[in-house]
Amino acid sequence: MNAFANPTLEDIRAAAARIAAHARVTPVLRSPELDVLASAGLHFKCEHLQRGGAFKFRGACNAVWSLSDDEAGRGVVTHSSGNHGAALALAAKTRGIPAHIVVPEGAVAAKLANIERAGGIIHRCAPTQAAREETCAKVQRETGAALVHPYADARVIAGQGTIVLELLQQAPDLDAVIVPIGGGGLASGCAIALAALAPRTRLIGAEPVGAADAFQSLQRGERVTDVVPHTICDGLRATIGVPDYELLKSHRVEIITVDDAATLAAMRLLWAELKQTIEPSSSVVLAALLAQRERFAGKRIGLVLSGGNVDLDAIPFRAASG
Amino acid sequence: MNAFANPTLEDIRAAAARIAAHARVTPVLRSPELDVLASAGLHFKCEHLQRGGAFKFRGACNAVWSLSDDEAGRGVVTHSSGNHGAALALAAKTRGIPAHIVVPEGAVAAKLANIERAGGIIHRCAPTQAAREETCAKVQRETGAALVHPYADARVIAGQGTIVLELLQQAPDLDAVIVPIGGGGLASGCAIALAALAPRTRLIGAEPVGAADAFQSLQRGERVTDVVPHTICDGLRATIGVPDYELLKSHRVEIITVDDAATLAAMRLLWAELKQTIEPSSSVVLAALLAQRERFAGKRIGLVLSGGNVDLDAIPFRAASG
Repeated sequence: MNAFANPTLEDIRAAAARIAAHARVTPVLRSPELDVLASAGLHFKCEHLQRGGAFKFRGACNAVWSLSDDEAGRGVVTHSSGNHGAALALAAKTRGIPAHIVVPEGAVAAKLANIERAGGIIHRCAPTQAAREETCAKVQRETGAALVHPYADARVIAGQGTIVLELLQQAPDLDAVIVPIGGGGLASGCAIALAALAPRTRLIGAEPVGAADAFQSLQRGERVTDVVPHTICDGLRATIGVPDYELLKSHRVEIITVDDAATLAAMRLLWAELKQTIEPSSSVVLAALLAQRERFAGKRIGLVLSGGNVDLDAIPFRAASG
Repeated sequence: MNAFANPTLEDIRAAAARIAAHARVTPVLRSPELDVLASAGLHFKCEHLQRGGAFKFRGACNAVWSLSDDEAGRGVVTHSSGNHGAALALAAKTRGIPAHIVVPEGAVAAKLANIERAGGIIHRCAPTQAAREETCAKVQRETGAALVHPYADARVIAGQGTIVLELLQQAPDLDAVIVPIGGGGLASGCAIALAALAPRTRLIGAEPVGAADAFQSLQRGERVTDVVPHTICDGLRATIGVPDYELLKSHRVEIITVDDAATLAAMRLLWAELKQTIEPSSSVVLAALLAQRERFAGKRIGLVLSGGNVDLDAIPFRAASG
């Protein structure tokens, strides 16, 4: 990992300029039916409509275009079971450089296919953190590729923060913004941007009960790294990153945990009412809001739908109602 | 049915003004992945994001707000197995008048639920055209409600044509616009608007092989009414209307027929790549384009995604691959 310096609003603005030619300004969608259900004004920031089908392209693209020509020439490498891998491959493609993606066994088929389609060079490994890092280090040694960590990377965090720049234009005066929490990169970037531009707008993280390491870390006041994730949200199984934990703590980000049944019910609502095929990891934001409906009643809320790379052969609704 | 006079561009413009306070200007979405697959520039007009989840709200709303106060006071009635019924109930609600919806047995659960949710008064009947019309006539006699036919109605056709007014602003210079063909109201309204505003842009209908009465009618030069529909596209089973047939003929609308397997494959692509939960009846437009890929290569195409009211408990992808 690069030496880490906390990204600033200026870094996020620079990221926005850097990725403008490649990333999409994603739309904000609304649903009167969901507003009625929640008794609140919901503004869904559609990052599943981002290139590659997830917000991850923002951070990956900012990292790739932050490299010097020399660095870029040796390519980039990361470990990812999903959206970050595809995003990095896609971002590397925009600069014409190789992307090595270390993928643990058990990744979602749709996400693996996206990595391949984007031209990523796939290296399989065992599904453990140690195997991921080892394989990654090996690729780095052999190729000289630059590591672009999925979330413990200032360039990545700054890239994810560009979501807030757009959202505040599209839906001003929000009372709160809710984002999913995996490794914490998205929440970190959004926290920095909100603190600088809309200090009145609260940032709230939504995390699966079965992978609540960030929640536990903030509760205990120290980073918890021994959670064995067990959740349908395949994009939120990562352990909170070191800088991400510090950023969430210093910005007093609150986390709401939701169980998978609530997440699946929310996912179904988003499919049926918003008519968007978003993945389970995105659905936690609506599940968190509905879990504390009274508190959010009458408020204007931004919800980041983080990704839409779902396996259509394994749509999980049935399991939820069983 | 009202005495029928062909709607004009002025009627469509008046409809746009009439529905502006109630209907949404739906977005146009694009997908680089689908563009590559089709070798064409695809512009998806997202009518599944219209109020009620289908374009039908436009025509229903125009009809409801075209009534005099006296007429409106007695309410409206229609027969519909789906989106038009929910749309009329919703439109009636915007004017605070009752909507009687005659629904044949066998309607899609999600669509029936939408009618109920919109406050429609449901009258069940046998799933035959005769039973629908009989029940409808009975309700009319008893209540004095005004009939708003799903497609053989000038006000409805004019309302559907407002889609083209928006689309031409959002995606100018299209080579063709592809719309699904059921009873023909959507195609008729779009044909009138395109002929007046963009005569160079070809209107193409997409119709299921198993409900190809409009295709056969145009081939034979007379309205075919004896097709027994057999298709997964529940929204496209209606018989082409009398005025609709005449309008499609006079505007030389071309129809491409597609089988259900192609429709399901297209539906899957739209879910996976465009990340939109659209219903089978919407998917025929992409299926039709892909069926004649070479012809459309390099062209700018508008495709109307007509609705998104799909039964999430009966997602049909498995059946397609079996």
